Amino acid sequence: MRYVLSVAYDGTHFNGWQVQSNGRTVQGELNEAVYKAFGEWAVVTASGRTDAGVHALNQVCHVDLSADIAGEKLADALNCRLPQDVSVLQSAVAPDGFDANRSAKKKTYCYNMYFAPRRNPLCDRFAVWIKGKADINKMKEAAAYFTGEHDFAAYCASGSQVKTTVRTVYSVDVISEGGFVKIEVCGNGFLYNMVRTLVGTVLWYSSGKLGAEDILASLNECDRNRVGKTMPAKGLVLKSVDYGTDLFGL
Amino acid sequence: MRYVLSVAYDGTHFNGWQVQSNGRTVQGELNEAVYKAFGEWAVVTASGRTDAGVHALNQVCHVDLSADIAGEKLADALNCRLPQDVSVLQSAVAPDGFDANRSAKKKTYCYNMYFAPRRNPLCDRFAVWIKGKADINKMKEAAAYFTGEHDFAAYCASGSQVKTTVRTVYSVDVISEGGFVKIEVCGNGFLYNMVRTLVGTVLWYSSGKLGAEDILASLNECDRNRVGKTMPAKGLVLKSVDYGTDLFGL
Repeated sequence: MRYVLSVAYDGTHFNGWQVQSNGRTVQGELNEAVYKAFGEWAVVTASGRTDAGVHALNQVCHVDLSADIAGEKLADALNCRLPQDVSVLQSAVAPDGFDANRSAKKKTYCYNMYFAPRRNPLCDRFAVWIKGKADINKMKEAAAYFTGEHDFAAYCASGSQVKTTVRTVYSVDVISEGGFVKIEVCGNGFLYNMVRTLVGTVLWYSSGKLGAEDILASLNECDRNRVGKTMPAKGLVLKSVDYGTDLFGL
Repeated sequence: MRYVLSVAYDGTHFNGWQVQSNGRTVQGELNEAVYKAFGEWAVVTASGRTDAGVHALNQVCHVDLSADIAGEKLADALNCRLPQDVSVLQSAVAPDGFDANRSAKKKTYCYNMYFAPRRNPLCDRFAVWIKGKADINKMKEAAAYFTGEHDFAAYCASGSQVKTTVRTVYSVDVISEGGFVKIEVCGNGFLYNMVRTLVGTVLWYSSGKLGAEDILASLNECDRNRVGKTMPAKGLVLKSVDYGTDLFGL
């Protein structure tokens, strides 16, 4: 039986999602919890990888089990075997033909920052400190350039192997809320480092280090020299994955 | 010259505010930063202690220095010598006769909780997970009993030595915001564990484990058997200390 899970994790102490020879990974912890609970090794497959230090509020995964357990009970069976920084928020039997990776239609990432004269340890775990004042209007101006289908090659870490660097971004929202500035990006898929570099570019535009012509050149001519810096992983959260259907029947 | 500081800290890895023979403390880190910056040992005095694991958004402190530094520059001079979990947010020359402990008129603590079917690692650092649904109206009902002058002996950890257990609580607000439920308590001073036990009592009232007669007996007869459990330290934040004057001239 194939099951679907919604998983939240604090990425601070993980070497990313995917199992690898070195370091602790979210997938590794989930695979192990499945083994402890059911005595079988089954690979937990996610909507996509997240990098070292990146968090998730709703990473969606599937896993095939020969064990017979009610869909909604799987979450608690795994949670009592998972460490403090991972938790299965919801579980269900997967719809026919469901694949957490291939069936994903849209993903939404949220990048969290706080603008202040000094660092605040109570904001630091899931957000990046930026010294000074936010120019929300300029950030919104920059954000508007990214919507639509573009070749995001300039926003992709070099050396990554993908078939195409063309992606569609449905929306980029700049939100000022509760002392934080959030940039929410929704798209059909994202390249390695794409959101973090997009956010860095929005910031450089807002502070005047880049102009509209730079952003246009980065998108139209894939010019890597016209983008901002790649922002730190700890500000990034995978907020949701949309499959065009209600997986958990809420 | 006496200086005043507003200090934020993530209490997770501190054995409380006050310097002691064992364990890392916030005061210890600040005293050491002063020494590294100015070569003099001066004791940093706070508005009051916070316990192990309790956080602060604005703990107010004073320190007497023979070094001559502009009030607003002291914050950065200390910050570059402080660890990641403490930060001086503001600094100034203290007003005449100011004492961070004795001059304090009101303190506001905030207790953070989230009500959910399952634990969420992204909420866990500064808030306590409570399984189930919050009954905000019942919580507000319970909160109303605490305002005014009362003998809070039943809300004080046994064995603590204080002259009097009478305190005045100015307000207890129950706020539902951004997925969290917060209980904000403002008073002229607090006993050891008082806010955490008050919050536990509000919760037990809201879930029907305690009635109005229990809260009244706990306050009027100091009956320790009629209060809720003392909630974990990690949900508690010292939000502000009021001196009846604007210390930082903002």
